[in-house]
Amino acid sequence: MTQQKLSDTPAAPGVHPIQAPAPSVPDGATGPVAPGPGAIAALWPLGPDQVRLDPDGLLGRWQRRNAAVTLPHCVDNLHGAGNIGNLRAAAGEADEAFAGMWFADSDVHKTLEAAAWELGRSPGDAGLRSFVDDTAALLARAQQPDGYLNSYFTVAAPEDRWRKPEWSHELYCAGHLIQAAVAAARTGVSPGLVTVARRFADLLVERFGPGGADEVCGHPEIETALAELYRLTGHRPYLDLARRFLDLRGRGLLGPGRFGPVYYQDHVPVREAAEVAGHSVRQLYLLAGMVDVGVETGDRTLLDAAERLWEDAVRRRTYVTGAHGSRHRDEAYGDPYELPPDRAYAETCAAIASFQWNWRLLLATGRARYADEMERALYNAVAVAVSHDGRHFFYSNPLQLRTGHTGAGEESAARRLPWYTCACCPPNIARLMASLHGYLATAHEDGLQIHLYASGSVDTEVAGSAVRVDMRTEYPWRGRIELTLDGAAAVPWTLALRVPEWCEAHTVRIDGGPVIAPVRDGYVRLTRAWAPGTNVVLDLEMPVRQVSAHPRVDAVRGCVALARGPLVYCLEQADLPPGAVMEDVRLDPAAPAVADRREDLPEFPVVLTAGGTLADTGDALYTAASGRGRRGTPFTLTAVPYFLWGNRSEGPMRVWIPIAASG
Amino acid sequence: MTQQKLSDTPAAPGVHPIQAPAPSVPDGATGPVAPGPGAIAALWPLGPDQVRLDPDGLLGRWQRRNAAVTLPHCVDNLHGAGNIGNLRAAAGEADEAFAGMWFADSDVHKTLEAAAWELGRSPGDAGLRSFVDDTAALLARAQQPDGYLNSYFTVAAPEDRWRKPEWSHELYCAGHLIQAAVAAARTGVSPGLVTVARRFADLLVERFGPGGADEVCGHPEIETALAELYRLTGHRPYLDLARRFLDLRGRGLLGPGRFGPVYYQDHVPVREAAEVAGHSVRQLYLLAGMVDVGVETGDRTLLDAAERLWEDAVRRRTYVTGAHGSRHRDEAYGDPYELPPDRAYAETCAAIASFQWNWRLLLATGRARYADEMERALYNAVAVAVSHDGRHFFYSNPLQLRTGHTGAGEESAARRLPWYTCACCPPNIARLMASLHGYLATAHEDGLQIHLYASGSVDTEVAGSAVRVDMRTEYPWRGRIELTLDGAAAVPWTLALRVPEWCEAHTVRIDGGPVIAPVRDGYVRLTRAWAPGTNVVLDLEMPVRQVSAHPRVDAVRGCVALARGPLVYCLEQADLPPGAVMEDVRLDPAAPAVADRREDLPEFPVVLTAGGTLADTGDALYTAASGRGRRGTPFTLTAVPYFLWGNRSEGPMRVWIPIAASG
Repeated sequence: MTQQKLSDTPAAPGVHPIQAPAPSVPDGATGPVAPGPGAIAALWPLGPDQVRLDPDGLLGRWQRRNAAVTLPHCVDNLHGAGNIGNLRAAAGEADEAFAGMWFADSDVHKTLEAAAWELGRSPGDAGLRSFVDDTAALLARAQQPDGYLNSYFTVAAPEDRWRKPEWSHELYCAGHLIQAAVAAARTGVSPGLVTVARRFADLLVERFGPGGADEVCGHPEIETALAELYRLTGHRPYLDLARRFLDLRGRGLLGPGRFGPVYYQDHVPVREAAEVAGHSVRQLYLLAGMVDVGVETGDRTLLDAAERLWEDAVRRRTYVTGAHGSRHRDEAYGDPYELPPDRAYAETCAAIASFQWNWRLLLATGRARYADEMERALYNAVAVAVSHDGRHFFYSNPLQLRTGHTGAGEESAARRLPWYTCACCPPNIARLMASLHGYLATAHEDGLQIHLYASGSVDTEVAGSAVRVDMRTEYPWRGRIELTLDGAAAVPWTLALRVPEWCEAHTVRIDGGPVIAPVRDGYVRLTRAWAPGTNVVLDLEMPVRQVSAHPRVDAVRGCVALARGPLVYCLEQADLPPGAVMEDVRLDPAAPAVADRREDLPEFPVVLTAGGTLADTGDALYTAASGRGRRGTPFTLTAVPYFLWGNRSEGPMRVWIPIAASG
Repeated sequence: MTQQKLSDTPAAPGVHPIQAPAPSVPDGATGPVAPGPGAIAALWPLGPDQVRLDPDGLLGRWQRRNAAVTLPHCVDNLHGAGNIGNLRAAAGEADEAFAGMWFADSDVHKTLEAAAWELGRSPGDAGLRSFVDDTAALLARAQQPDGYLNSYFTVAAPEDRWRKPEWSHELYCAGHLIQAAVAAARTGVSPGLVTVARRFADLLVERFGPGGADEVCGHPEIETALAELYRLTGHRPYLDLARRFLDLRGRGLLGPGRFGPVYYQDHVPVREAAEVAGHSVRQLYLLAGMVDVGVETGDRTLLDAAERLWEDAVRRRTYVTGAHGSRHRDEAYGDPYELPPDRAYAETCAAIASFQWNWRLLLATGRARYADEMERALYNAVAVAVSHDGRHFFYSNPLQLRTGHTGAGEESAARRLPWYTCACCPPNIARLMASLHGYLATAHEDGLQIHLYASGSVDTEVAGSAVRVDMRTEYPWRGRIELTLDGAAAVPWTLALRVPEWCEAHTVRIDGGPVIAPVRDGYVRLTRAWAPGTNVVLDLEMPVRQVSAHPRVDAVRGCVALARGPLVYCLEQADLPPGAVMEDVRLDPAAPAVADRREDLPEFPVVLTAGGTLADTGDALYTAASGRGRRGTPFTLTAVPYFLWGNRSEGPMRVWIPIAASG
């Protein structure tokens, strides 16, 4: 087999050796997204057993919290909200009325996937183990003789089975079942679940495969799931069906629906799309499927389209937090540069989907920009969705909450809620956090690449030799990352360390001695025949940054966002002087901001202080233009990491701070 | 009877003589909104036969266009879209399936109301006359034996009759039927229709009156309609039922629905509400009903609440165009100061409802601020909804359309459409325009008040004597208004002329001689024993204004809106240099703007030119804060009246223009 040339965009030399002999994905690479041996792959994912997060680093603590709190909380809520009951009814073991959303099964499947990753990582939890065993068995019993498995269309609306593809989420739910089964098989947690998934997948191939119905699902997800099932099983019809779903999309098969075909990306064939559009989660899951199918089939037109849409998304329609989706009405992307902070929809699932999509692009291309985007989403748009206690969640993640905001239902809640009527987000967080260690590093035949920094370790093989890298860091609070390399490597290999796009200055020391290590395509690349015990220190300078948005982003004109390292910061009412109105706060852009750890806040974070004023803004809504609001009372402004907001008292918040001169 | 003290807010002396002997509404006052003889009324409306708009002034041309084009267009579409067919089916004369929205009858009723006002004004149109006659007869045949009249719940879902008040719009439709009947009776165009309306209203009294069902309608409208029907008939149970619906509201009777009880103002009793909230049209129709019931029952708590909500609406949640409604998702008000120009929902019906509500407040209190608000809405938020050709309409009226906006369905169309699936707006425009002359002036026992300026005439009685006032003006293009007073008046009376809130300098001449005429409470008040033929010239200075929004309106920070007289202006792509991107335009706030008539545009409007630059805005979506976008290419910027945008080529538009210094 030969390595495919991915696209015309320049690849990262040394990381994406498109002319080099084809790399093959090593055996045992069984994390989320495992490109097959013939796939286009600039980088190879490591197996979840090859990377470990220390429990005391921030990412490690998130993963531990997820296991200890969030996952059991999800399981409890699946019981309480009726999702498990629905499956019992479908299995003929209960006759309660169907409860919840018609796609409620998908929450079960996502929780199951999360549990699989978690048990694969740390097989000790008996409760979680029995959830997996019981649920896998229940799914097998709820499955219909022909392989169909969907409790809503079995119990509540059998007459509509396969009849409302624009709305039904049947293939979406099937996709999440398949992903759960893939995770359960890859981790060895529940190999039997894949039998259930394959019976359903075989039914899909029969019904929708070549010569079958020309239909697609209103909510993409099945595409990436079938590609992963192909990777697991080697059964080509799954991949072919995934590709067929992509090929059929954008041909108006779904009809206009309530929001028009753009809502579910059925307005233009996927290879021809020039812009991300419509429901942002659907768009991003579809893009993940495009990359998966593209790399497995060698279809570079799919990858080119995905990279083109990335440019549109990241350059014109992504929030500074890495969130996607500007509009509440249809949970959708907006016009170019339409990025309102207060009405940001910024669905948690979209941020997770963006993370997953960027991981796929990173593996395919090796381009650092995709890892940058993963980092931005993870530390901001994803992390903010979970409370510090791990059992409250945001569905929508605005960048501003106004004074006087009254929670207008679940879609614009003023604080994190324990569960949702449409509960897609919490189990999505759970599956990402449970597999988080799988996204830190990759390998390649000439070396190891570290993309996300956290205290932990990597054990893998490079150039046929076992290597171990231990990482110690207080990232994202400090930019110093200390690595210890162990294991004998007979031949030189390259350790590639990502220097994030936000970092303007870095240093590298090897065994205490400074080395010249320029950034090439987003990474410093250190090639050595590494002696066991070699110490490498990467120091990323982390000054406080004042970030401004493109002037076409009207919604934040005259504002800056404070950022440090990968973190975006925000103001919270709790840190304002008594009686101060959040909307009257101004930042003095010339006053230096100071970064300090704060012991009284969750996570012991670095907070920023800077010069601020409280503007005297007057009364009239509209007046003859004047300099009103420019005078004000000075005070010291405190900004906290955005992902931590809302963990103290409920109240206004804002990421984008008007600068004092802007009125 | 005694005149009621309205509220604690100061009233306009001489216009709202709360201690004076009770005014009584003169006989023959039969326009839209005709307070009864016992009502709280600072001002009395004039009958539609007492005011005439010249056909060559702007308002007169709008009214003429409405009669010649818009109204026949509505009638055609009622046939084409199936609304008439639905009623035929309800009458048992056809058996087609129900077509359109379940509240499609209301479009028929509103068109009927419009036709009644139009025929009352100018009884010549045979086509319109036969539409009224045929439709009135059809409604009588479609009415059920018990008085019920609603084609959807007769034809399509009889089992749901009265069973889904949160959703059904049954009382909403009944309200519009009643309003049509009131208009038809007041104008004498179709007195028989009131029999149909009363049969239905009597059924409502029986079902929902004292001792009946404790229910309200999800969409307010019945309240104001029943008050008007009471005014027409003197039948007190209609007024009592209107009051009962108000008293029952805000008690959670409707249940949460999809958007929560705030959506239909069922979250708080109407007298206790502190903020406008929820679906804006519903809120505004409810407020109109509160004023109607308040003035007729002497219940000042309702009026106080309405004035309190006015303060909230106008000071924190109204667009500079007079539009209401910031959110697409639930067609709703947003948080305080949440006024995005691009995602302004700004429904046409909300602007019309605001106009109608303010008229009621003006009559009740005599306070100029309500007339100011009528003027602002009329010339901007209402007028923009109709194309120059009179047969295309906006449903949503944003203040900005971005480069790259692709029409996302009817709710955010990039251009006016001929008709809508939910066609509430076009017939609403038609009924307002057909009755527009009724809103220009009012009387009081001590004089005549002119609130809106247009070429036309007023014939009425003041202090027992006939008077005639002829108005000549090029308003809103020029601020000069020339009035000729005729008719013998034995005793002195006061001519009150509104000086709009936007006007900072004015002069008055009587028979050529300057007089000192200060503004008191929004009006100049000229008291004379007027000699026949007296000439009064009011000159309102109309410089170009740069309007800024309250600094808490984040969405337009660093921007100004250009305005002149009552008109808000906007930029259109058609006036930019070739290749210029609208989002890159900056206004030089120091350069003087020039106002000039432009012959090549519809309406021969005054356009504004000013100094602009095209900023060089670069590429990156987020960067370290800098002065990017501040350099640019100078050009002469042209602004056109907002209400005229979109009558040339389709393309971007914006009301709020970033100023050059703001980046």
